[in-house]
This record gives sequence, C-alpha cells and structure tokens, in this order.
Amino acid sequence: MSKATTHDMRCSVYIATSLDGYIARPDGGLDWLSAAQQTGEDYGYARFAATVDVVVLGRSTYDTVLGFGAWPYGGKRVVVMTHRPAAPRHGEELFDGTPAELVARLRADGHRRVYVDGGRVIQQFLAAGLLDDLTISIIPVVLGAGIPLFDGSEQALLLDGAEPFPSGLVQLRYRLAP
Amino acid sequence: MSKATTHDMRCSVYIATSLDGYIARPDGGLDWLSAAQQTGEDYGYARFAATVDVVVLGRSTYDTVLGFGAWPYGGKRVVVMTHRPAAPRHGEELFDGTPAELVARLRADGHRRVYVDGGRVIQQFLAAGLLDDLTISIIPVVLGAGIPLFDGSEQALLLDGAEPFPSGLVQLRYRLAP
Repeated sequence: MSKATTHDMRCSVYIATSLDGYIARPDGGLDWLSAAQQTGEDYGYARFAATVDVVVLGRSTYDTVLGFGAWPYGGKRVVVMTHRPAAPRHGEELFDGTPAELVARLRADGHRRVYVDGGRVIQQFLAAGLLDDLTISIIPVVLGAGIPLFDGSEQALLLDGAEPFPSGLVQLRYRLAP
Repeated sequence: MSKATTHDMRCSVYIATSLDGYIARPDGGLDWLSAAQQTGEDYGYARFAATVDVVVLGRSTYDTVLGFGAWPYGGKRVVVMTHRPAAPRHGEELFDGTPAELVARLRADGHRRVYVDGGRVIQQFLAAGLLDDLTISIIPVVLGAGIPLFDGSEQALLLDGAEPFPSGLVQLRYRLAP
C-alpha cells in the first residue's frame, strides 16, 4: 500500500441534533427528528453515504438500527464497537479495542472514509483526535434534556459551510482544527 | 395605551454559544468567544441593539457586565432580575418577581423590544412561554463542559435564517413556534 493511501482515510460524523445539542431524548427517543422530515429531502445523506466505505457504530446505535428492521448499510463494511456479545446478522464485525486501534486497522485495510456514528463512539473519536469532519444537522427544536452529542472534550473547529433548509433544519459542516 | 401597543412587545435573545450549546465555561469564562472576534464585524449586534428599548439581565450576567468596566446599555432601561441586594450605578432597576410579572409591567409601560440576557433568565422566559425570537451565534468550538443556554424546557422553533461568517461563526435566527 502506498503512503498516500495510508494517509488518505477520513473519519466523518454525519448526525442530527436538537438546537441544544442532543442526539436523542433521555430514553433514546428520536420522534423529534420528524420535525424536519420532508418527502424527497434527505439533507445530503445519500451523497455522503456514497463516499463512505466503512461504518463504525456504537453499541446503542447498533441496537437501535437493528430495531429499524431494514439494514441500512448494505454494501459497506460495518464495525460495531462493543464490549458485549452480539449476534451479527449482516456481516458486521464486533470490535473490542480502542478507536486508535480500529482506525489503524481500517487504514491498513485501505479504506477511504469512515462514518462514525453513536454518541459515545463519536466522543471517543473526538477525544482521541481521530475525527476529520462533522456534518451536524440542527433540528429546529429545543429538547431540554437528552443524550448529548458532545461531552468532555474541547475542540476548535473550522467551518466549511452552513445551509438552511425549508423545514427549518440547518446543516453545519466543520473540519477539525489541527 | 392602545391595544395594538399592548400586543406589540417582543422579548428577544441574542447570544453566542459553543457548538455544544454552552454560553460560558463552568467558571463563567468567555475567552473562547475570541475565536470569532474580528475587527469591524459585530455580527449584527448594533443593528439588533438599536431595536431594543429594555434590557433584562440575570444577576450573574449583570455582575459579569459590571466587571467589564464600561456600561454597555447607555440610553436603555435596564432591569436586573435578582433576589439579592445590589447597588445600581447606572439607573438600572432591580426586580424580584417572575418573568411574567416583569413582562406585564414592561408592556404596560409601552416598551417594544426586550433584550433578555443571562442563562437562567433566558431559561425562565422560555419555560414561561415569554420569548418571541432567538438569535444564536454558534462559535466554531466544542467546549465539552460549561453553563448551558438551554435546560429543561422543550420548545419547537421556526427558523428565520442562518448566516455563516468568514470567522466560522454561524448565526441562527429562530422564532418561537406557537
């Protein structure tokens, strides 16, 4: 593998939050996302997903996705970061190490873009300096309580863009400042 | 006073937060705001302030502002919501009642636009359904901990606009949904 390939992998976050920074209600509820659901508007998700060859999920997010019924990551490598047993049904891998170990492995395998999803996993990647960019879609609602996207780590960001949508959702794109 | 005047007063928030929704560090520190300070760019503050005839401050914000030295609210009525004694030096009034009582009084006095500032006071106005609009300037930084802008109340919002600036600040303007 060339050195260029080795350095080329990006780890990305693509997530919706309330204006007060929650990714779910205290009980994990996502009903409030419907405030921005509009037919024919995916807020760039398909375009983003087309650039992704690996999905890294936290255990809670994985369990939530399993509850959706349909498996949304067909054609992509999926790694679930968990310390507990699971019964993979779609070829997903379980990983019990650190984010840095996982990133090193994925880079060695020649991957190009990692979609990092799940509150705690995102926080761990951020704290370890392993995130390259974040796309945050702010839903026009204040929840007042919930599971926060960020927790504990300070990080300067560089704004790449901000786009408002007719639903009231605003999508913010950041790169991580060096 | 005409009925039109009675119904015409707006209560507005104009505030900066980190991307994770904090208005200050845990110790009240505001150093991180400098990430978006640029000569000649006030992010619309002067235009906003020109529409304001009353400033309502929480006690912590009031004490912080006193520490700035210069009094930034010249020419405006200033009300400090506090249960503790203070020694007004610029004609500011102390108020020990509820937000609803204060709003009724300000409306009766014929005011047009109230600038509500301070985390707890904003939360109290929001919880009481007394806010009309919020302008939130998101600084491109994640703090990881601090004093949150929002806490406890759920509220749907209507987006009025989103504007990115070269500094990386994004200004979001919301109205409160009925």
